[in-house]
Amino acid sequence: MILLQSFTEQHVPKIEARLTELIQTIEAPAILKEAMDYSLAAGGKRIRPLFLIAVLEMLEVEHPEAITLGSAIEMIHTYSLIHDDLPSMDNDDYRRGQLTNHKVFGEALAILAGDGLLTFSFGVLSRLKDVPAEQKIELIQLLSESAGAEGMVGGQVLDMESESKTVSVEELELIHVNKTGALLSFSIEAGAIIASANQQTRTVLKDFGYHIGLAFQIQDDILDIEGTSATLGKTAGKDVASEKNTYPALLTLDGAKNKKEWHYNKAIESLRQISSEPGLLDELAAYIIKRNK
Amino acid sequence: MILLQSFTEQHVPKIEARLTELIQTIEAPAILKEAMDYSLAAGGKRIRPLFLIAVLEMLEVEHPEAITLGSAIEMIHTYSLIHDDLPSMDNDDYRRGQLTNHKVFGEALAILAGDGLLTFSFGVLSRLKDVPAEQKIELIQLLSESAGAEGMVGGQVLDMESESKTVSVEELELIHVNKTGALLSFSIEAGAIIASANQQTRTVLKDFGYHIGLAFQIQDDILDIEGTSATLGKTAGKDVASEKNTYPALLTLDGAKNKKEWHYNKAIESLRQISSEPGLLDELAAYIIKRNK
Repeated sequence: MILLQSFTEQHVPKIEARLTELIQTIEAPAILKEAMDYSLAAGGKRIRPLFLIAVLEMLEVEHPEAITLGSAIEMIHTYSLIHDDLPSMDNDDYRRGQLTNHKVFGEALAILAGDGLLTFSFGVLSRLKDVPAEQKIELIQLLSESAGAEGMVGGQVLDMESESKTVSVEELELIHVNKTGALLSFSIEAGAIIASANQQTRTVLKDFGYHIGLAFQIQDDILDIEGTSATLGKTAGKDVASEKNTYPALLTLDGAKNKKEWHYNKAIESLRQISSEPGLLDELAAYIIKRNK
Repeated sequence: MILLQSFTEQHVPKIEARLTELIQTIEAPAILKEAMDYSLAAGGKRIRPLFLIAVLEMLEVEHPEAITLGSAIEMIHTYSLIHDDLPSMDNDDYRRGQLTNHKVFGEALAILAGDGLLTFSFGVLSRLKDVPAEQKIELIQLLSESAGAEGMVGGQVLDMESESKTVSVEELELIHVNKTGALLSFSIEAGAIIASANQQTRTVLKDFGYHIGLAFQIQDDILDIEGTSATLGKTAGKDVASEKNTYPALLTLDGAKNKKEWHYNKAIESLRQISSEPGLLDELAAYIIKRNK
């Protein structure tokens, strides 16, 4: 993981600096900008922008707006966390070791900070430099599908609906393909779009995104059992306590680990179709399934 | 108002049919689509799409996607109402004579239905036919600014911040220019954009939108005093009871009416710069200040 470490150390500070810069450009009430910035600045793995940048590296494209596009995706991810944490949703007090947005700013402002981030993200996409208008439109269309009712928002609804019943593995997969997979896949496909990659490369990367998204979620479920609250920055064991539908609950812990390995292997197989040399994307994929937070 | 009545009777059903059609195209959990559709179908004046279409008529442009673009704007307006009505915001039980979204579907689903409508609206814009990619980008950029932290969402925050204090007329104007004016102005400017209007026309229409947006809000404040709950479909007298900052509260009822007339006249003056003949836009503007709901 030497490559990955230097890659992360190089790019994460740039992403975080750009997030702050972008928020500073907004002309809005100070308290709203503060609430938007609070959750953006709360850390996190920045996995989605890192995937985007790693795709560009694999395709050997240096794009001046990669960091900005990645930051827009991180805004969507962050808005979804703010809304998910609300009392009427998951009712979480802590996220990434910090108080959740509504615990600091109140529910109304947390909802509006989320709305603001979601709306602003599309504005950032529309203003990307060195991206042809047609590509921007493709990005915006795909982001709307991935983040909206047909993707992330729909996945959250499926997740809520599944709370009071036991679902099948297929149903659980559908939840996660939408709830977490869609935006992760978008990050990967977005790299292919601004790199003007051909259709075969895009199809392969879509497949890679699908499998790595599921592996990511299974690891999330595993960490709820094996992780500690201190490392996770949120309450461990919450899924078990709330009898949530998770891969370990449906497949046993070992079964979930096997399924995670299977998706990881499928993801790597996909990658091998377009790149014979293991690179950053391989390392990011490996990190996804081994991470402890 | 003969022109306006036939115009409204012609276009409102088309807008409402398109809203339903667009929601039907979404592949999402049924309950989410139902929640999104519930508030879209709850009626309302459809003022924003009507302004868009009236602008196109004035510019003598028949655009095949006017109804679709207008519907996307109506989705943004509707999402903002769903979120504004939430218990942590205005805590309203009724809207347009019907139970508010969260009273029917619960808070979590109401938040997600709003998120879904907001996100979908950008997707609709990205898929507009017969609109060049550059114009779509312009629409998306302007919508992001008008609906987001720099516009509508920011205005809502300013409104919340003003609740516990008395504001000046200038501060009240800033709230409303953002909270209701920005999206109304967008509807008007959007017509100019897809009509490929020149810069002078756009500047004039922007000015028209600014004044008519404020006249609209002042009439809203007046209706809270002079209207009835039955006609309004929401509780009348709520502003007075909650000691809200309104134009009548700051300027007296007569003062507010004078201010409304002043903005109306400025709006009409603007229009006269690009169209010497009174038409639908004039009638819509007149309706705005005389409406009883």
